[in-house]
Amino acid sequence: MSLLHPDRLFPVDPITREIARRLFATVEKAPIVSPHGHTDPQWWGQNPAFENPAALLVQPDHYVLRMLVSQGVGYAELGIGPAAETDPRKVWRTFAAHYHLFRGTPSRLWFDHALSEVFGIHRRLSPDTADEAYDAIAAALATAGYRPRALYERFGIEVIATTDSALDDLAQHRAAQENWTGRVVPTYRPDSIVDPLFEGFAKNLDRLGEITGCDTGTWVGYLEAHRARRAFFIEIGATATDHGHPTAQTADLTQSEATALFERVRSGTCSEDDAELFRAQMLTELARMSCEDGLVMQLHAGVHRNHNTAVFQTVGRDRGFDIPSQGAFVDALKPLLNAVGMDPRLRLILFTLDEDTYSRELAPLAGVWPCLRLGPPWWFHDSFEGMRRFRQLATETAGFANTVGFNDDTRALLSIPARHDVARRVDCAFLAELVTSHRLDEDEAYTLAPQLAGGLARAAYNL
Amino acid sequence: MSLLHPDRLFPVDPITREIARRLFATVEKAPIVSPHGHTDPQWWGQNPAFENPAALLVQPDHYVLRMLVSQGVGYAELGIGPAAETDPRKVWRTFAAHYHLFRGTPSRLWFDHALSEVFGIHRRLSPDTADEAYDAIAAALATAGYRPRALYERFGIEVIATTDSALDDLAQHRAAQENWTGRVVPTYRPDSIVDPLFEGFAKNLDRLGEITGCDTGTWVGYLEAHRARRAFFIEIGATATDHGHPTAQTADLTQSEATALFERVRSGTCSEDDAELFRAQMLTELARMSCEDGLVMQLHAGVHRNHNTAVFQTVGRDRGFDIPSQGAFVDALKPLLNAVGMDPRLRLILFTLDEDTYSRELAPLAGVWPCLRLGPPWWFHDSFEGMRRFRQLATETAGFANTVGFNDDTRALLSIPARHDVARRVDCAFLAELVTSHRLDEDEAYTLAPQLAGGLARAAYNL
Amino acid sequence: MSLLHPDRLFPVDPITREIARRLFATVEKAPIVSPHGHTDPQWWGQNPAFENPAALLVQPDHYVLRMLVSQGVGYAELGIGPAAETDPRKVWRTFAAHYHLFRGTPSRLWFDHALSEVFGIHRRLSPDTADEAYDAIAAALATAGYRPRALYERFGIEVIATTDSALDDLAQHRAAQENWTGRVVPTYRPDSIVDPLFEGFAKNLDRLGEITGCDTGTWVGYLEAHRARRAFFIEIGATATDHGHPTAQTADLTQSEATALFERVRSGTCSEDDAELFRAQMLTELARMSCEDGLVMQLHAGVHRNHNTAVFQTVGRDRGFDIPSQGAFVDALKPLLNAVGMDPRLRLILFTLDEDTYSRELAPLAGVWPCLRLGPPWWFHDSFEGMRRFRQLATETAGFANTVGFNDDTRALLSIPARHDVARRVDCAFLAELVTSHRLDEDEAYTLAPQLAGGLARAAYNL
Repeated sequence: MSLLHPDRLFPVDPITREIARRLFATVEKAPIVSPHGHTDPQWWGQNPAFENPAALLVQPDHYVLRMLVSQGVGYAELGIGPAAETDPRKVWRTFAAHYHLFRGTPSRLWFDHALSEVFGIHRRLSPDTADEAYDAIAAALATAGYRPRALYERFGIEVIATTDSALDDLAQHRAAQENWTGRVVPTYRPDSIVDPLFEGFAKNLDRLGEITGCDTGTWVGYLEAHRARRAFFIEIGATATDHGHPTAQTADLTQSEATALFERVRSGTCSEDDAELFRAQMLTELARMSCEDGLVMQLHAGVHRNHNTAVFQTVGRDRGFDIPSQGAFVDALKPLLNAVGMDPRLRLILFTLDEDTYSRELAPLAGVWPCLRLGPPWWFHDSFEGMRRFRQLATETAGFANTVGFNDDTRALLSIPARHDVARRVDCAFLAELVTSHRLDEDEAYTLAPQLAGGLARAAYNL
Repeated sequence: MSLLHPDRLFPVDPITREIARRLFATVEKAPIVSPHGHTDPQWWGQNPAFENPAALLVQPDHYVLRMLVSQGVGYAELGIGPAAETDPRKVWRTFAAHYHLFRGTPSRLWFDHALSEVFGIHRRLSPDTADEAYDAIAAALATAGYRPRALYERFGIEVIATTDSALDDLAQHRAAQENWTGRVVPTYRPDSIVDPLFEGFAKNLDRLGEITGCDTGTWVGYLEAHRARRAFFIEIGATATDHGHPTAQTADLTQSEATALFERVRSGTCSEDDAELFRAQMLTELARMSCEDGLVMQLHAGVHRNHNTAVFQTVGRDRGFDIPSQGAFVDALKPLLNAVGMDPRLRLILFTLDEDTYSRELAPLAGVWPCLRLGPPWWFHDSFEGMRRFRQLATETAGFANTVGFNDDTRALLSIPARHDVARRVDCAFLAELVTSHRLDEDEAYTLAPQLAGGLARAAYNL
Repeated sequence: MSLLHPDRLFPVDPITREIARRLFATVEKAPIVSPHGHTDPQWWGQNPAFENPAALLVQPDHYVLRMLVSQGVGYAELGIGPAAETDPRKVWRTFAAHYHLFRGTPSRLWFDHALSEVFGIHRRLSPDTADEAYDAIAAALATAGYRPRALYERFGIEVIATTDSALDDLAQHRAAQENWTGRVVPTYRPDSIVDPLFEGFAKNLDRLGEITGCDTGTWVGYLEAHRARRAFFIEIGATATDHGHPTAQTADLTQSEATALFERVRSGTCSEDDAELFRAQMLTELARMSCEDGLVMQLHAGVHRNHNTAVFQTVGRDRGFDIPSQGAFVDALKPLLNAVGMDPRLRLILFTLDEDTYSRELAPLAGVWPCLRLGPPWWFHDSFEGMRRFRQLATETAGFANTVGFNDDTRALLSIPARHDVARRVDCAFLAELVTSHRLDEDEAYTLAPQLAGGLARAAYNL
């Protein structure tokens, strides 16, 4: 018996559940459109075998790490950082011994899905079943059917986007395109050359100049270098850019103000305020470039990264210590929007970790500015309750058409089908509730379900 | 068959639904008490025929405009602003072609209600049915039964308040009172003479002086002029004032501080901080006047108006580009409350667009200060989900008695019965859920339903 | 027939309700663990009879007072402050006459529970039943079975913590321990010697010096005095400290900075900023002490106390005029967390009145920092809807293990079983919903229910 119930996440009312089931049946097997994520391009370019269960499923998953750490498990026990455990089976056992911690969390749903649907393991993970599961997964990983490209096919992926440094040569994407039919597209992520506080910013700009042949010592040359890199990304298939900023602040400086700001930034003497202003101005500049070259912008704003300094220093980034910060979009986006927000060529997709802004700011903004769309619930809110709240808080003001469907935003390859499955279930449940409360006719729900399951994403990202 | 299901918005659980039905049956036909809204006084004074379906239902509705604009429809296509489409039928067709955008929004519910209940149109609006609906509505509008006063009777309105500039002569109200039995009362809205940043503020104060014979060049004379205008509004039937402020900030300056501030404001040299302080001080002064003359205060705070500068310049105000801003009431209201908040003659009704403040600030404040009451969910939150959240977030701390029932707050005459219908359904559904979860006895729900449907509004607004 | 329905607060869906019932049956009679509250130590030390119904149930209950005041009842009518009504029966009648105001509030649930379960009164309170109820309660209070220690036994309390000034001699706790088997433990609450703005701060520090023999004129001596007091509290059974701060701000100053700050604070010349910084620094110092002596820290942050100045001056604190303020934890806690947050000996339990922070800040923080735990919904949110929101907003990110079960936080002795009953019902309902939506297996729900009903509290507070 599967670890997964066929009616999971559906409403409990029998009539509503039946409608949700029928809606879901129309999208359950729909191809996966994954327009924003963090899978490793090497997987697609080289199609390597995955190393072992711990390295695949435990160590790179920051949701898993953070929960274990919160209950006193050390990084070393998990095979990470100084004096790390080197036996992956022991790491796996530690994980299994704490699997009960994930009750009620999305990680549990994703993980049970991977065990059951991907590996055919139907006993709940626990200390008793840890070794059995480890052996089964390890055996599977040694077979061709569990290499990345085979999983891409098996998961029914239609297209998947990675997120790539603006300085990346995209060699893996080119390799994938040369000898494989899967569609993997890069995404232009220029944080390392847009944020003056990014590690190695000055060197990154030097490197940008070398790659593009542009003079990144000047404001004009620097912008030209962005255009050149974007053109290259488009050539390799990119349809979007992504921007991970501490805030959503934008600016619209005059040419001379911008030039002077760039000079301060370039000289390495800029203040924190200058850094914020430069990021702000660059969002508007990048929006202007999007009007020209058609790349869809994504803005992920509002994360306090590396809240734990010691953990950052010993085991690095993405270990679970990123915490949301308060969102503010209305004043912050105004300069950009008033500069280019009515341009029909611009599309800007917004993501937040501050759910307060759904009904107060984001739905009202996206419900009127033609360039704006709302990204799906992000990160901590990529969950049953999180998705429900998003639909309940955003739909009445922004409708469905100003949202972009689901994206999985993950580096955890095996969770991709699980995440899309959860999103489709929650959306079908929401539509079913609209139907049984007579806010929507049933035929309309059948029109909307496939849009939410893929159509809106395809359209929003020009895929 | 009606576009509306008789069980719409009721809970899906059969037992709870049955209780909701029975409760709703007791209030479905109750008279409409509309203590806050924006209908055009001329409708009541002159009883004109409405021009055409687009001018009545599309062009003045900022909810409709914003959704269409968000998906790329231009104002010109909607017959608004430069180079506007002049054929109302074409505007209507544009609206009908995009009617699917409103799925899941309150506009859809309101609109279906108007089509079905007011015009007897029972086919869903779409490109296919656009002309048929247009013709039916246009034909109806040419008849006496669709003039404003006839609709007032047909909708079962008991009393309706308009919102009127403090400088208004209220001629239309007087005209209505002379030759009609409907009850239409004005509301004293002094923003144009209270906000130093209001367009034409200085001239408005001159005009205020002319109308009242008071010396609006002095602080004392200016306050006296307010008193005179309020007395005039009361004479014409007003029971309330309304204040649309960017924030809820109040102040309680000394007489000499206030006088000096007024002088800066009057001379036209005041700073933005002075303007905020003046609005803040005036809220307290107006509260003091309310203690004297009994007008109920309403405070609508926290809107960033005209977020799109170009749209404001080309097509003006109220075109969909107003966005909520973050609310803050606890410190902001403290000066006013400590000055007059325990006076039994004062009643101050608070409205917000920041739902975070429901449970954190507004319910705790209204749950103790005797002068405070909570207005219904406002604007973007005048919706099924919005109203549910309000009751769920506010009731446990503020109870029902510190809320004021529903008001429709609309200039869209035909949506008035729909909006009250939605509010009554949501409230009956909420009461039914309290009953089936045994938080309230059924007999108490029958006591509360008519209060929420009209009784609390009558009492709160002294109607 | 009881005022309470056996299925109250359970889900309406029959299958889910049945699961909730079965889960609840396993915890309904579980002993009450009350690790945080405000009962009067004298009750436990002296076991006095309660005076009369009004003095027991109305006058000390700030939830009751605030609702009555919000609808125009004066404190004097309630027997409080100047010119107060002296007849407790009249106070009781005033309360009964306004009992309808509590419909839909937790006070109603708690009160009905006390009437029905504690006093055997099964008619709803109203003007008609006021005297009858008064007489029955008064008669009961005269009997031995209604003295505090008897109620402790009858309520099935396993352990109860009080909250005690750091300067308290804990004589009542010692008295209770000498001649009674009940377990009543003190909690170290040092606000009066940690907050420079606390009334009598300087004198309090003098007194602290006298009690401990430490030189509280120096930073080192002052910290030593804290250690001495904590050791004394531990000797009398304390396992926790409690900190009621206006904000959650923490600091981690150098030794010399801290010394200089203490000198400014001690001299009575410190600014508001200094006061905030001193409180902030002390949270970190106290966390360091907790690492040494094992006392669990509790931080209750974000209340604007005594919003009504006149009421504070005439009738004092805790009369209903405390209002939540906006929460901010991410930056605020960072200094403390980076100083001692990875120490396995530290446990810090966080409470908020700003529900926005549940999903944005608190669950993400507690979901990774090993020292952090989330306290139950506090004060205004100690309610059916409040608890549901907490579980819905926090569980997916923090899981269950990073929460600490329920605590009643009350001085209203008779409401204690009612509050735990509500919490257990809401938690069982939540677990049942996880089960019927197939997010949790039923056997896991049976494991979690007793943890939420007491196990997590015992573990978190080292009880």
